[in-house]
Amino acid sequence: MRLGFDVGGTKTDAVAVAPSGEIVARRRRPTGWGPDEVVDTVCALAADLAAATGTDLADVSSVGVGMPGQVAPGTARVAHAVNLGVDELDVGSVIGARLGVPVAAENDVKAAALGAYSLQGGTGTIAYLNLGTGIAAGYVSDGVLWRGTGGSAGEVGHLSVDPNGPVCRCGQRGCVEAFAGGGAIARRWGRAGALPVLDVFDAADAGDPRALGLRAGLAYGVAAAIRILVLTGDVHAVVLGGGITALGDRMLTLVVDQLEGSAAASPFLRSLHLTDRIRLLPPGSPAAALGAALIGAAAHEQESLAHG
Amino acid sequence: MRLGFDVGGTKTDAVAVAPSGEIVARRRRPTGWGPDEVVDTVCALAADLAAATGTDLADVSSVGVGMPGQVAPGTARVAHAVNLGVDELDVGSVIGARLGVPVAAENDVKAAALGAYSLQGGTGTIAYLNLGTGIAAGYVSDGVLWRGTGGSAGEVGHLSVDPNGPVCRCGQRGCVEAFAGGGAIARRWGRAGALPVLDVFDAADAGDPRALGLRAGLAYGVAAAIRILVLTGDVHAVVLGGGITALGDRMLTLVVDQLEGSAAASPFLRSLHLTDRIRLLPPGSPAAALGAALIGAAAHEQESLAHG
Repeated sequence: MRLGFDVGGTKTDAVAVAPSGEIVARRRRPTGWGPDEVVDTVCALAADLAAATGTDLADVSSVGVGMPGQVAPGTARVAHAVNLGVDELDVGSVIGARLGVPVAAENDVKAAALGAYSLQGGTGTIAYLNLGTGIAAGYVSDGVLWRGTGGSAGEVGHLSVDPNGPVCRCGQRGCVEAFAGGGAIARRWGRAGALPVLDVFDAADAGDPRALGLRAGLAYGVAAAIRILVLTGDVHAVVLGGGITALGDRMLTLVVDQLEGSAAASPFLRSLHLTDRIRLLPPGSPAAALGAALIGAAAHEQESLAHG
Repeated sequence: MRLGFDVGGTKTDAVAVAPSGEIVARRRRPTGWGPDEVVDTVCALAADLAAATGTDLADVSSVGVGMPGQVAPGTARVAHAVNLGVDELDVGSVIGARLGVPVAAENDVKAAALGAYSLQGGTGTIAYLNLGTGIAAGYVSDGVLWRGTGGSAGEVGHLSVDPNGPVCRCGQRGCVEAFAGGGAIARRWGRAGALPVLDVFDAADAGDPRALGLRAGLAYGVAAAIRILVLTGDVHAVVLGGGITALGDRMLTLVVDQLEGSAAASPFLRSLHLTDRIRLLPPGSPAAALGAALIGAAAHEQESLAHG
């Protein structure tokens, strides 16, 4: 049995994965604030999953934890998980000691990329594009995550696609995230509300010109990110996930329109059939927790190989 | 002994590589036009290298051929090598039959990426950015080329970085290649000359306003490509090669200015230390031919493993 955890800003999603790769149990709990509560949440969920599957924790072969923040390749230390109140946490040591099981860690978007790859059939080369408060992505080819030097490959959110575009919180202009990030849209919209991007879409439907502009910008940014991922990674599919994808077809239709508009002007883009490559994770998909379990399993295999 | 060939539009560069990885001989010949002459050129150079190293062709363990054009992963068939007059050529079968040696093929920029990786020390994750008539790139991590679905990962030339930028031959506006490709600059400059980009730089030095604009655009496009490669691939180095790099510091200084300008506005970009990641291949570097030899060797090892 392998366990995978997706530690998010509000809730933590946990799955138990059988050796066949099938998810046999899933549990969720609200995530606490700060390193101690994050660790407690993961450990409590591990006990929940053990109970749900009638497994002893000692029989869990590996654990993987996905968290927002930086995870240097080859380590299980998470840094700068600001929306969890975690500045630095050695997930491998701290949770490993509590559970008595080898624990791997990975950035949550990278974990979701690996989970999405598995859920999409586990073949070829894909990118996962996370559309949330911020924008980030990950590439997976032949089951292997592209990590790069510091574990942050796929950071398409801060690529500028318009030198005259909106100012981004990173200081550049026209970043993909400045157009399409939920946080950036909420800041520019400026009206209070629990779901600001939904509010923008509703206002755009009602004809509000500022909302129409923001909504068009979102589609422009997402389409640009899809082009970047396909042309840099030569991926056969771009899987979309994250909070903004809850808008479903209301968002997707506009992104497809953008891509079809650019393809109409460019035989080269037309030849790429970009719209055929888009996949949408279903709402509530366990991709990130599943990916974390897969990363835990892979890390455990490498350990076993290295130490016999 | 392994042989590697870089078949270019005007000349073919060939190297013999010892088992240690050292280049022990190098020869060049003008490339003929069309598939038959391309094959003859490669075979003549193979004989040149055998003679130069006192080796029998039967003792050559593998051959790799880099060519402009598309090479589907897992094949040695080159398609659309338009500037060689080659529509389609099964390099593996045709040259393999002539030489009696296993022959692998790869796109020339991807081969150069692998060669550049080796010449840079053969560690970590790098991108190779080819600045020639067109613009393309390749990523290498831990000695492995990122190929993607169809072998064309790293096609950053046709990513738009300015919706109001110059029209690209691909139909989009503001592509990296429309700003920085030698062909695009020559078309917009419009004056005859053997080295149009050099001509533009000379005219810019003399104060010609149109040349100043084109030169600034080149730096803008190259800087954008560097940002794209670092943020998508999380590469520790971007190695620049291709005809335009013959301008050396005259080009590099402007690219560094561009990157420093964007870093001054963005703490995020500043933290990436982009200018420290730039490497320049020396003029006449054998990177592409060396990379082709490495690809031939890797393909041969896989064959041997598969067939005993």
